[in-house]
Amino acid sequence: MAQQFVLHSIGVVRRADAGPDGKSTDHTAEVALEIDPHWETALAGLEGYSHLQVVALFDRAGSPPDPDEPIHPEGRGDTPAVGRFATRTPVRPNPLAVASPRLVRREGRVLWVTGIDLWDGTPILDLKGYSPRDDQHPDATVPGWLSALWALHDRERAG
Amino acid sequence: MAQQFVLHSIGVVRRADAGPDGKSTDHTAEVALEIDPHWETALAGLEGYSHLQVVALFDRAGSPPDPDEPIHPEGRGDTPAVGRFATRTPVRPNPLAVASPRLVRREGRVLWVTGIDLWDGTPILDLKGYSPRDDQHPDATVPGWLSALWALHDRERAG
Repeated sequence: MAQQFVLHSIGVVRRADAGPDGKSTDHTAEVALEIDPHWETALAGLEGYSHLQVVALFDRAGSPPDPDEPIHPEGRGDTPAVGRFATRTPVRPNPLAVASPRLVRREGRVLWVTGIDLWDGTPILDLKGYSPRDDQHPDATVPGWLSALWALHDRERAG
Repeated sequence: MAQQFVLHSIGVVRRADAGPDGKSTDHTAEVALEIDPHWETALAGLEGYSHLQVVALFDRAGSPPDPDEPIHPEGRGDTPAVGRFATRTPVRPNPLAVASPRLVRREGRVLWVTGIDLWDGTPILDLKGYSPRDDQHPDATVPGWLSALWALHDRERAG
């Protein structure tokens, strides 16, 4: 019953701070979203937004997932097993990433952003301006296990 | 140079308030995200989030766009011409929608949400829990023409 759709990349993530495996976790790094020349004109006006919404494809996420496999978030024994959709694992039925980095500047068809953890070489599928009226939910709440993980990471960072 | 990817729907938007064309603009309506039985187990734990992040496909958006066509947002003569990516038009190189509705409740493989304007029958590609630490940007700003449009709509609603 699933419908099938063919999508095409419009550009690629380029990051100078990545290791040979393309990976970096540095959210402060300036990263280039390099859009194909075909779409350069269609970027006009994006520089009016402080943040972007980027849809990309986790192209190195591996095989399609087992639908029934429980996930312990961050692979930890002390997180409860949940379904795949309740996590941000890149191993998803459609390996789609949604990120909302800060736009530092546009140089022609290159958008320089910070606050993104996509790997070097990741294909980009769509770009929009981040729209507070649509994308902002100040009253949003998350499961207890996720709040607890965030508090733990904060304590770790604080030393 | 564009890379090609094949994606599959994981479910469909069902809305009882839509007209024969599938369309509704009622953000207060309860809308069903009906996920395929194959993925029901993978939904476990999503009900712990107050909001979802939904990636869907504008399946009635028509032909691929002219990359160089300027867009006047909302088709108005008094908005400046911008590139397609600076707008939320469904006519995009990859017709991807990103929405973040409120999750009212989960009933098995049906997620009941409010605050979504996708049409009846829209294919769903991915679901995540809305994560304030990733998806919230209280300092986000938008272009002047968009602020002006929002102010205009507010005045119209106020009568």
